[in-house]
Amino acid sequence: MRKPKIVVLGAGYGGLMTVTRLQKQLGNNDADIVLVNKNDYHYETTWLHEASAGTLSPDQVRYDIANVVARSKVDFVKDTALKVDTEAKTIQLEKGNELSYDYLVIALGGAPETFGIKGLDKYAFSITNVDTARQIREHIEYQFATYQIDQKPERLTIVVGGAGFTGIEFLGELGNRIPELCKEYDIEKDMVKVVCVEAAPTALPGFDPELVEYATALLERKNVEFRIGTAIKEATPEGIVVAKGEDDTEEIKASTVVWAAGVRGNPIIVESGIENMRGRVKVEPDLRAPGLSDVFVIGDCSLVINEEINRPYPPTAQIAMQQGEFVANNLVSLINGKTPVNAFVYDNKGTVCSLGDDDAIGVVFGKKVTGTKASFMKKMIDNRALYMIGGVSLTMKKGKFNLLK
Amino acid sequence: MRKPKIVVLGAGYGGLMTVTRLQKQLGNNDADIVLVNKNDYHYETTWLHEASAGTLSPDQVRYDIANVVARSKVDFVKDTALKVDTEAKTIQLEKGNELSYDYLVIALGGAPETFGIKGLDKYAFSITNVDTARQIREHIEYQFATYQIDQKPERLTIVVGGAGFTGIEFLGELGNRIPELCKEYDIEKDMVKVVCVEAAPTALPGFDPELVEYATALLERKNVEFRIGTAIKEATPEGIVVAKGEDDTEEIKASTVVWAAGVRGNPIIVESGIENMRGRVKVEPDLRAPGLSDVFVIGDCSLVINEEINRPYPPTAQIAMQQGEFVANNLVSLINGKTPVNAFVYDNKGTVCSLGDDDAIGVVFGKKVTGTKASFMKKMIDNRALYMIGGVSLTMKKGKFNLLK
Repeated sequence: MRKPKIVVLGAGYGGLMTVTRLQKQLGNNDADIVLVNKNDYHYETTWLHEASAGTLSPDQVRYDIANVVARSKVDFVKDTALKVDTEAKTIQLEKGNELSYDYLVIALGGAPETFGIKGLDKYAFSITNVDTARQIREHIEYQFATYQIDQKPERLTIVVGGAGFTGIEFLGELGNRIPELCKEYDIEKDMVKVVCVEAAPTALPGFDPELVEYATALLERKNVEFRIGTAIKEATPEGIVVAKGEDDTEEIKASTVVWAAGVRGNPIIVESGIENMRGRVKVEPDLRAPGLSDVFVIGDCSLVINEEINRPYPPTAQIAMQQGEFVANNLVSLINGKTPVNAFVYDNKGTVCSLGDDDAIGVVFGKKVTGTKASFMKKMIDNRALYMIGGVSLTMKKGKFNLLK
Repeated sequence: MRKPKIVVLGAGYGGLMTVTRLQKQLGNNDADIVLVNKNDYHYETTWLHEASAGTLSPDQVRYDIANVVARSKVDFVKDTALKVDTEAKTIQLEKGNELSYDYLVIALGGAPETFGIKGLDKYAFSITNVDTARQIREHIEYQFATYQIDQKPERLTIVVGGAGFTGIEFLGELGNRIPELCKEYDIEKDMVKVVCVEAAPTALPGFDPELVEYATALLERKNVEFRIGTAIKEATPEGIVVAKGEDDTEEIKASTVVWAAGVRGNPIIVESGIENMRGRVKVEPDLRAPGLSDVFVIGDCSLVINEEINRPYPPTAQIAMQQGEFVANNLVSLINGKTPVNAFVYDNKGTVCSLGDDDAIGVVFGKKVTGTKASFMKKMIDNRALYMIGGVSLTMKKGKFNLLK
């Protein structure tokens, strides 16, 4: 009898959770497991804002996939998946090979969503992966270095587009990083301008207003200027143009524009003709793609509705990991001829948004937290993700242990 | 009786040597000493190639002037000298003040000489000061970071214009730095291209051919490609255009072009109408400017002929420091009514050209040295400059003590 072949696309939170749970529960004779990923490392998407600001080394943000995946049980393919043929049950890879599957788990993560705003794709950076994070860090440093040569004030202006989770966390890190940069490059702190532009009527939509107030007040003390309820009309080589009043616009000159406002699904979803909304698949209760009994979609490419408010859960590491575990368990059931679980239920343990290295806000197990306590919890959450996928040794190696300040 | 006023422009090797020797020998009632410098720090010009490559922190390359100048004896003015009126005996400063002098020591250092090559001033970097060094370092890092985004091979090409002293030392540091950068940015070493273009028929003109051969062979092993006897015709936003054969040209695409081929005098010399050749003053034997009995010119702005070969001594820290000491002693004699020494005699103790952190070539006290021994001597020379100006404590703080590898 032929062994079923499970292909997992993506070694993010969801993909690695799936693979590590599969390799634990399946023997070599039960199934062939294949993991496809562009890089031979996993990176912590939720830490990229730190690498982008320059407060954490990019190397600390990633680890080798070989550290957590058992090569004896899993074939690792370093390649980029371009398109899935859901009828032929094959995946087209960039380097020219085709890969067949019996079960497919799409865990490829998202892509920046620019909502068609002109120039954003060209002139704004995006906190997307290790490569873009390093580029943002180096771009900002280069601007500070060059300011001493040409004295252009816009070199010291950083615009952050979006006051959502990523935007706020990035601003928090900038608050720590900018004083260091000023020292390094002999720049007066007052010369640096950080502007956060958010089209929505509030920062951190969905968060408790009291916590939002705490976060914005803290960031304002760190010299962040908020432009809430202000839409970016265009990004240009000189900066951005924002809406002002009914018909007017205003230019904000800035050498650095970081777009941190939206995530859509991976392009492969659209490319493969799978039913989607902005590249995300509104999955069945058991996380299968509609009409495709052998394709599971998890993480940023999936869309799970929070019935309480009838809106999708935001794409987070937490939900991706729970989905990965759910799909792995169901695949094991299917292979062992048992009945899989009908519906994925998200267990929201809470959310903490960091505000730099030493402060944070959040709701954990239903309770509001701020300050050192929240910051401590954030680091515990970061360490937990490492532990869930790579156990104690990985946590010791890459974890955050500057827990109390 | 009015005290004579000595103004020293520039806190480089020559200027600081002058001031520290003056403050040692003159009492508060003997003279007013004023030091004018753009920054409140001194930097080691001879170490800038390290800061530019990123192998040494820019902060390690400089120290506060306050560390070596006695504020009780010397007025420090943080400003930029724009023009000297040698008749009125005044100096125009950038911030609008005018400064008078009885004796003036111009020790302002040089400026890059681009020999009129089109585009060099606009598209090439120059290892000139702490600001430009930091910019070069950050520019190179940004190119490496961005390569992972757009995969343009020219991002990983660095052109060094000039195989003279600075060019070769910079190439040596790049040889150490590039493997680090490749590791940091996940780049294969073979993708990086370093090209050194030199119009003269040899690298390091004036050096012993055996040493030149040692240096170029070593750098070639570190993947430097030499284009000797090749003139740069133009620098462009894309790279450089070099001469090829009689009439032909060739483009070398490179995101980083560092021009390290020429030094001329400080613009203030020309601006002030002092007799000069390429901004450098062919000084009288006692280092006075021709026809100006109260103006001394030392360091890169001065031109002292080496009678043996009837060519000017190259501008080095060594000669600048000896000139500074000579001028300080003569000023003390003048003020004390003694007869100053007639002629400055340069005592060439030797020259060592580093080839990275662990190798060098040179001639010291008439003997050729290479390898670890030469590298050791180079660091001793670097430490000696610190010691001569700032004594033991400065040497301990900023010196190079990784003496043996």
